[in-house]
Amino acid sequence: MPGSFVHRLRVRYHECDAQGIVFNANWLTYFDVTLTEWFREAFGSYDALVKAGCDVVLAETTVTFRGSARFDEELAIDAGVERLGTTSMVARFTARRDGEALVEGRTVYVFVDPATMGKREIPGDVRATLERYVSG
Amino acid sequence: MPGSFVHRLRVRYHECDAQGIVFNANWLTYFDVTLTEWFREAFGSYDALVKAGCDVVLAETTVTFRGSARFDEELAIDAGVERLGTTSMVARFTARRDGEALVEGRTVYVFVDPATMGKREIPGDVRATLERYVSG
Amino acid sequence: MPGSFVHRLRVRYHECDAQGIVFNANWLTYFDVTLTEWFREAFGSYDALVKAGCDVVLAETTVTFRGSARFDEELAIDAGVERLGTTSMVARFTARRDGEALVEGRTVYVFVDPATMGKREIPGDVRATLERYVSG
Amino acid sequence: MPGSFVHRLRVRYHECDAQGIVFNANWLTYFDVTLTEWFREAFGSYDALVKAGCDVVLAETTVTFRGSARFDEELAIDAGVERLGTTSMVARFTARRDGEALVEGRTVYVFVDPATMGKREIPGDVRATLERYVSG
Repeated sequence: MPGSFVHRLRVRYHECDAQGIVFNANWLTYFDVTLTEWFREAFGSYDALVKAGCDVVLAETTVTFRGSARFDEELAIDAGVERLGTTSMVARFTARRDGEALVEGRTVYVFVDPATMGKREIPGDVRATLERYVSG
Repeated sequence: MPGSFVHRLRVRYHECDAQGIVFNANWLTYFDVTLTEWFREAFGSYDALVKAGCDVVLAETTVTFRGSARFDEELAIDAGVERLGTTSMVARFTARRDGEALVEGRTVYVFVDPATMGKREIPGDVRATLERYVSG
Repeated sequence: MPGSFVHRLRVRYHECDAQGIVFNANWLTYFDVTLTEWFREAFGSYDALVKAGCDVVLAETTVTFRGSARFDEELAIDAGVERLGTTSMVARFTARRDGEALVEGRTVYVFVDPATMGKREIPGDVRATLERYVSG
Repeated sequence: MPGSFVHRLRVRYHECDAQGIVFNANWLTYFDVTLTEWFREAFGSYDALVKAGCDVVLAETTVTFRGSARFDEELAIDAGVERLGTTSMVARFTARRDGEALVEGRTVYVFVDPATMGKREIPGDVRATLERYVSG
């Protein structure tokens, strides 16, 4: 499917809490891991992007919980671009188990210069690559 | 200040990532820890609330990042109620360092019966207690 | 190689600390994840073992640090049995990057009945399976 | 008691696993947090020690599990020195709940120069301070 990337992972034992389900904060971690794998596909590696003078920092994230997941379950987390601004990107993540959407994330990333951590425009080649992941 | 509760904690070493700042998902964990301490003040303990037939589950949370925090820094996290519905509560959290707001959270909790995990009305006495934390 | 199982994983960003290396406690987590995958190969799943009336609890673990690992590096963690007792097993784990041993673990597990959490003898079929992983 | 330092903490919800008890790796984290607080008492702060040209890295750690702890329980973790070598220190940690020893740690730390991360002798003033924590 154009416009998205999918990362698969399995719920680890320590990621579940005393209720036996994935602890809420760990969904943000899953989205972060998915971003790393997505940027590997898009740019070769997260590190390659940083070396090219671009890093991203979170400005805001919203997580919507529709279901939960348990130890050892396999999840498919898709990632895509909702909107590309001049210096920012809105990304969307959906974690599914057997096609059922469990948890969704919507994250605003700001592009920064890794040397100064100051805001910067998204370079043309980075933008061109990310446009391939814009959802229809 | 009426309408809020404050929990103080210190950033632990492992909560910081390779950039030397608190990893994004750990702010959700801090808000969870603050909820526990808030409910201790309000209800005696989180467990007391559960034993009285009420538990809360997250429906949605938004985290806004304005700054970051580093190892060993002391944070003050305040918590309060933005809105009390029939079966849900919107809570607000603000993490500050020396008065500077670093990260804010807005979380929608749904009240459930711990036995069935089904949605339930907020009982009168629980509602009366939470109303003391509604922000002005 | 007879006598061992290998699980491969990649270091996640949040598993590194402010020094940029895997935080010490996370190596225990890696060994735990490796145990889960090893028992999947050996018994179908960790859960299958529990359903058959066996669980394991840690009695003691020693971790030896010879090197460190950084974000995004790929590790191969092998696991094997050093000794099988009547009610306990000593397992060994070695985490390697490109063949270089970084961190080693030696863990004593006690077999318990999941219903009572009391110590129990290792059943004959479980023992027979684990004997395939005894190091030469 | 001469020869030891005690840090008190409360078990956080996400530190427990699906069995409802503190996940094994989190005991290493508790000992790390205790080291930070111990060094605050001993040296002003962990950072002060680093700025004075000394850091410590883990060479080996052994954790012995005698009991477990659950959400919201208060633990007292004491720390002391078992042995001071020329470039290393063996420290001991014991986590107790209401006086009952639950989990013990024995950790070998090597002193390094933070600039080079190379092994270094423990400076005289650091040694004199640590000697106050040697167990009888």
